[in-house]
Amino acid sequence: MELIFSTWNEVEAYLDRSKGIVIPLGSIEQHGPNGLIGTDALCAEAIARRMASEGEILVGPTISFGVAPFNLAFPGTISVRSTTLMALVTDYVRSLAKHGFEHFYFLNGHGGNLGPLRAACQDLQAERSYGEDGGQRSIRFFFRSWWEFPTVDTLRREFYDDGEGMHATPSEIAVTQALFPEHVKAAPPTNVARLSTSYLREHAGDNHADAHQHRQHFPDGRVGSESGLATPQQGLMLLDAAISDGICDYKSFLESF
Amino acid sequence: MELIFSTWNEVEAYLDRSKGIVIPLGSIEQHGPNGLIGTDALCAEAIARRMASEGEILVGPTISFGVAPFNLAFPGTISVRSTTLMALVTDYVRSLAKHGFEHFYFLNGHGGNLGPLRAACQDLQAERSYGEDGGQRSIRFFFRSWWEFPTVDTLRREFYDDGEGMHATPSEIAVTQALFPEHVKAAPPTNVARLSTSYLREHAGDNHADAHQHRQHFPDGRVGSESGLATPQQGLMLLDAAISDGICDYKSFLESF
Amino acid sequence: MELIFSTWNEVEAYLDRSKGIVIPLGSIEQHGPNGLIGTDALCAEAIARRMASEGEILVGPTISFGVAPFNLAFPGTISVRSTTLMALVTDYVRSLAKHGFEHFYFLNGHGGNLGPLRAACQDLQAERSYGEDGGQRSIRFFFRSWWEFPTVDTLRREFYDDGEGMHATPSEIAVTQALFPEHVKAAPPTNVARLSTSYLREHAGDNHADAHQHRQHFPDGRVGSESGLATPQQGLMLLDAAISDGICDYKSFLESF
Amino acid sequence: MELIFSTWNEVEAYLDRSKGIVIPLGSIEQHGPNGLIGTDALCAEAIARRMASEGEILVGPTISFGVAPFNLAFPGTISVRSTTLMALVTDYVRSLAKHGFEHFYFLNGHGGNLGPLRAACQDLQAERSYGEDGGQRSIRFFFRSWWEFPTVDTLRREFYDDGEGMHATPSEIAVTQALFPEHVKAAPPTNVARLSTSYLREHAGDNHADAHQHRQHFPDGRVGSESGLATPQQGLMLLDAAISDGICDYKSFLESF
Amino acid sequence: MELIFSTWNEVEAYLDRSKGIVIPLGSIEQHGPNGLIGTDALCAEAIARRMASEGEILVGPTISFGVAPFNLAFPGTISVRSTTLMALVTDYVRSLAKHGFEHFYFLNGHGGNLGPLRAACQDLQAERSYGEDGGQRSIRFFFRSWWEFPTVDTLRREFYDDGEGMHATPSEIAVTQALFPEHVKAAPPTNVARLSTSYLREHAGDNHADAHQHRQHFPDGRVGSESGLATPQQGLMLLDAAISDGICDYKSFLESF
Amino acid sequence: MELIFSTWNEVEAYLDRSKGIVIPLGSIEQHGPNGLIGTDALCAEAIARRMASEGEILVGPTISFGVAPFNLAFPGTISVRSTTLMALVTDYVRSLAKHGFEHFYFLNGHGGNLGPLRAACQDLQAERSYGEDGGQRSIRFFFRSWWEFPTVDTLRREFYDDGEGMHATPSEIAVTQALFPEHVKAAPPTNVARLSTSYLREHAGDNHADAHQHRQHFPDGRVGSESGLATPQQGLMLLDAAISDGICDYKSFLESF
Repeated sequence: MELIFSTWNEVEAYLDRSKGIVIPLGSIEQHGPNGLIGTDALCAEAIARRMASEGEILVGPTISFGVAPFNLAFPGTISVRSTTLMALVTDYVRSLAKHGFEHFYFLNGHGGNLGPLRAACQDLQAERSYGEDGGQRSIRFFFRSWWEFPTVDTLRREFYDDGEGMHATPSEIAVTQALFPEHVKAAPPTNVARLSTSYLREHAGDNHADAHQHRQHFPDGRVGSESGLATPQQGLMLLDAAISDGICDYKSFLESF
Repeated sequence: MELIFSTWNEVEAYLDRSKGIVIPLGSIEQHGPNGLIGTDALCAEAIARRMASEGEILVGPTISFGVAPFNLAFPGTISVRSTTLMALVTDYVRSLAKHGFEHFYFLNGHGGNLGPLRAACQDLQAERSYGEDGGQRSIRFFFRSWWEFPTVDTLRREFYDDGEGMHATPSEIAVTQALFPEHVKAAPPTNVARLSTSYLREHAGDNHADAHQHRQHFPDGRVGSESGLATPQQGLMLLDAAISDGICDYKSFLESF
Repeated sequence: MELIFSTWNEVEAYLDRSKGIVIPLGSIEQHGPNGLIGTDALCAEAIARRMASEGEILVGPTISFGVAPFNLAFPGTISVRSTTLMALVTDYVRSLAKHGFEHFYFLNGHGGNLGPLRAACQDLQAERSYGEDGGQRSIRFFFRSWWEFPTVDTLRREFYDDGEGMHATPSEIAVTQALFPEHVKAAPPTNVARLSTSYLREHAGDNHADAHQHRQHFPDGRVGSESGLATPQQGLMLLDAAISDGICDYKSFLESF
Repeated sequence: MELIFSTWNEVEAYLDRSKGIVIPLGSIEQHGPNGLIGTDALCAEAIARRMASEGEILVGPTISFGVAPFNLAFPGTISVRSTTLMALVTDYVRSLAKHGFEHFYFLNGHGGNLGPLRAACQDLQAERSYGEDGGQRSIRFFFRSWWEFPTVDTLRREFYDDGEGMHATPSEIAVTQALFPEHVKAAPPTNVARLSTSYLREHAGDNHADAHQHRQHFPDGRVGSESGLATPQQGLMLLDAAISDGICDYKSFLESF
Repeated sequence: MELIFSTWNEVEAYLDRSKGIVIPLGSIEQHGPNGLIGTDALCAEAIARRMASEGEILVGPTISFGVAPFNLAFPGTISVRSTTLMALVTDYVRSLAKHGFEHFYFLNGHGGNLGPLRAACQDLQAERSYGEDGGQRSIRFFFRSWWEFPTVDTLRREFYDDGEGMHATPSEIAVTQALFPEHVKAAPPTNVARLSTSYLREHAGDNHADAHQHRQHFPDGRVGSESGLATPQQGLMLLDAAISDGICDYKSFLESF
Repeated sequence: MELIFSTWNEVEAYLDRSKGIVIPLGSIEQHGPNGLIGTDALCAEAIARRMASEGEILVGPTISFGVAPFNLAFPGTISVRSTTLMALVTDYVRSLAKHGFEHFYFLNGHGGNLGPLRAACQDLQAERSYGEDGGQRSIRFFFRSWWEFPTVDTLRREFYDDGEGMHATPSEIAVTQALFPEHVKAAPPTNVARLSTSYLREHAGDNHADAHQHRQHFPDGRVGSESGLATPQQGLMLLDAAISDGICDYKSFLESF
């Protein structure tokens, strides 16, 4: 069930059955010479929508815009400030909490979103912490990036090994190739330098330099990723894995409290 | 050409040909008993995408979230604060202006967005007004709600007369029926009270009461609109009209300065 | 009755008779070679005050500062950010709503204010929409720029035809001449280029370029307006028209809900 | 010379002679049973305007709205948040600094404004401190509440002794009586309790309780002030003193750097 | 009793005995050639902690960061925006007020903090003023810079006369010498120009120029202060005076309401 | 070398040798029946200071205040909003970057800080990404919570096994016992329920409920932690491990780019 394709009466009826929702988050940023600028939003949205249709789950509208200032020297990247993403998440959750939603499962497609997302959710809990003790329903959050799903993680290591890299990864590109065959671009040469351990350690969570430095370091936009290894067939397998892992993960979240 | 389906190299090449972009804006809010919650975003996005494919125009990712607090008493509505929408528009424009974009055509699908959108654009011009005189490229904005297109306006009056109303209009519902036949819902009874002149006058631009009052006034969510009159065939005609009017309007904007 | 010349006891007594108030908004910006920098604030304030004295209406203090970044390259212009105007409108309304005011009629004197004003009012309704259903009194807003009053509009077309233009219009200058004969300045040459249809269409609502561009386009500050046509006599007629139209319009707002 | 009654060309010419400006600040708040709600704004504005006309000084438009939350339980009070006043002061100064103004003399009419005013000016200096060393012109601020002027201070002690009190003081009421004889209200009984030393010590600078407490403590709005002692004649004397002290003080500020 | 060295159960028990707390504020900024960058935070914290241990008073954690943009051209200075300090004070007070604290005594160590501190406290009172009348406990604030304590003030005039100056004063440096003998630095030459009356008058409350100007005016960071006169022995005397004056002052605040 | 105990000349000299700094972050929140409210700030500060003294490293002033709204139902907790912590981190970094610092190593003592900290650092990079390409020095961030240091992690598992838990851990309490023997509190009974896998999974990174729920779930404030196992001797060993791991980790960060 998708919120955008429902009527308000249908959502009202859904709330009698469940108080949970899956919210996809993406980013609009360069993904190297053959990756789509919308990759992060497209992947998270597609996985969430298929979780919804196969798992009797409600999926909300995608938050397409993410925090990716380091990619602003590549044309087409649209990066929002952390405070902007936080404002958007805040209003999204406040609106749904007013209707009675309680369990918010964020299905994330971009590493740089996690800090601001967690920050916003702390402030949402703070608001509710100052209110009166009692009456008010409690709300809960869960954060999951789709590449962390165990089957997905196994597959992407198997398919690409250390060619997976950090950005414009073959796994995310493969997923978009499976989803949008009409938008598959020619593969770039496979000559990407592997990242050093110290680079990986320091830059985890998209902790990158400013845009000018970042483009100097990674002139075609790939960050240690052999994007050219991606195939639509792998994309389908990754997508299927993400959907079944995702349904499990969401259900386990619902049952956990 | 759609930004989300492009690579950064393709956007770089596009910027040699044009500095313009079409940006769809919507809202996630109840649209009465048979309207989809995503109606405003879906309509604006669909029109913009088809303008893009038929008119050699670049369309950016949709800003799906709009300002609709008056609908917050209907489950499923997600309303953002004006300041949130303004932050999002600001970051969107700043990012693209950094890449060299100059002409921003906002294709709007929700009346309540126009105030905040104009407010954000004034502040963007203010930022640039404090900078040094010279060097910097000027940027321009244009705001258009799709139902203002002349052919669309003629058609909707012709199809629905005063049953068009203010919200959950048969015209927008017809467009979503044409776009998503699998999501056509049963039509509600056609007994909607027509709006008084003083109501229309005072509430233009979604100048509505708070959510509780608004739901009391319009218990099923329609605001003077005979949503049940919508048909997919009319939707197709409205869509075609919007696309050709839209292409003209955008080109005229590009040439106007 | 003017709020600034009343005591709190008088306001308390007024609230037993009415919950409405008229709030003038202006701008502090250049108005061409013979227009006063305070024109927008002075006109809105004068009309509102005379509505008050002739119509048993309460008028609040003027919000003199408006959003006019495009005029920042002309010395003397003071432009506030949209977010600043919104904060001011928010606090103004919150204060009065706490006292029991319910009907807010904004009498506007500057086009660039309308977007931020509407944005602020949506956020005020949003605040109230998250509160508990019930008890709380509803508040309503109405927005009117004085040149929209029907008699005023007829007169200004009659007096100045297409010399009325967009900024530093002879009508607003005539009103200030009627109000402040001691500040009438020498008329500039009447040689202003008429605005093209595409200019008018694109720049409606003060959707102008940044300050540097704007001054380059309109070197003496007039935007298609033959300011030199203004006379104090016309100003008096416009003022009288505005006052009687305004009283009607406000009363119709009070009765409309 | 008053900014609102000038043209931009006149301001441009003024900037060749001086880079200084006087900015009046007020408040819109209850002033007891016979004080006008606009008292603080009216006094500061009148003194500044007469300084302007008698001293070849430029006066900017009045910031009428002040920070007075403690008076929100008295109908008619409009209090802005500190952050709102700071935003307004920031935009006011930024606009004028862009035109070349350097010396900002704030003529204050309300104690509660001083904290936010100083806070805003620190942040304005901070902005400029991060910029490049060199080129940029330095700006300076000065803060003066009109009752601190030495002759004014002597007169008000002489006229009212400890009946001057803290709020709705006879001195400010006398000034409004001199300015607006048509708005003189009947004097209340002179039975106001004098404030204890510990009260004066703790509440200096309008450091008051919340609105509910404040009204409980001071049910008719006077804070230790015998407002009924005010006469228009005293008002004239206070006004004259303020104007000549003010001109001196401003000139000494201009010369001091 | 120090909050940071207490358990929550101990704070709960304290609240049965008292609702008051002392909150030290400092600044991290250059203090001339022999002053420590942490001087303001170190002095306020030390005085507050000794007030706590000798006076059965609870002291909260120090707000070390202050508003000192004028010192940003001296390496090591960390200045926060006024709005940042205000946010911090707001959250600090809101947290403690939730636990039942009512009496907030700010022991300040840096002049530039007072404006923002007062501004934040007004907004805290504003929040509470919009709430419902009744139930809610009232909160009170008191602001004291330690050098205002009468015995301290007498001593510093006696020790240093007009060599005390405005910044990097011998009195504050003497206090840090008494506290941290291992960090006493060599005294600079005693040749500091005394400040003119007009300078003192205009710059009271750290109303300084931007950082570039400020460093040009005061190249070694001392503002009229003969820092070299400081001795640890004087520091001990100043510290003792501050502690006994402080305990009195705080108790008088608690009893005053 | 500690910034607060240095003069500006000493910092200037340091910048010739290094552009790096260690910044401790803590939190002021309940730590169960025998943990100190300042635990997180005290641990991070002590480790950073000893890294400084043993490793020729500069340590900045501690950011004591963290994001811990879930603990607001326990008296003494002071939680700041994410946006407040972000503002503080922003100003801290901007100030130091102005002086020439480039390498910012955050030594964190509280899980809930990491989201906001990362969010702030993205926005700092965004600011710099919009500037001109070239000239500007790049800045880098690194985030490390002290309990992640490998030797520390081994020791705490060895000492406490699954009694380490999530909050008010015996390891952090042991460190404060080693640092402040005068503040060791009586150990509570060792009967804390171990946390389920689903709890640990969902609540990683302090993703807790609102304050009311949180206290209901964990009535004495310990979250699965056998705080009573802590001893000062273990604290010393943990501290020593943290310091040597920390010096390595920081040096590796400096060399990594």
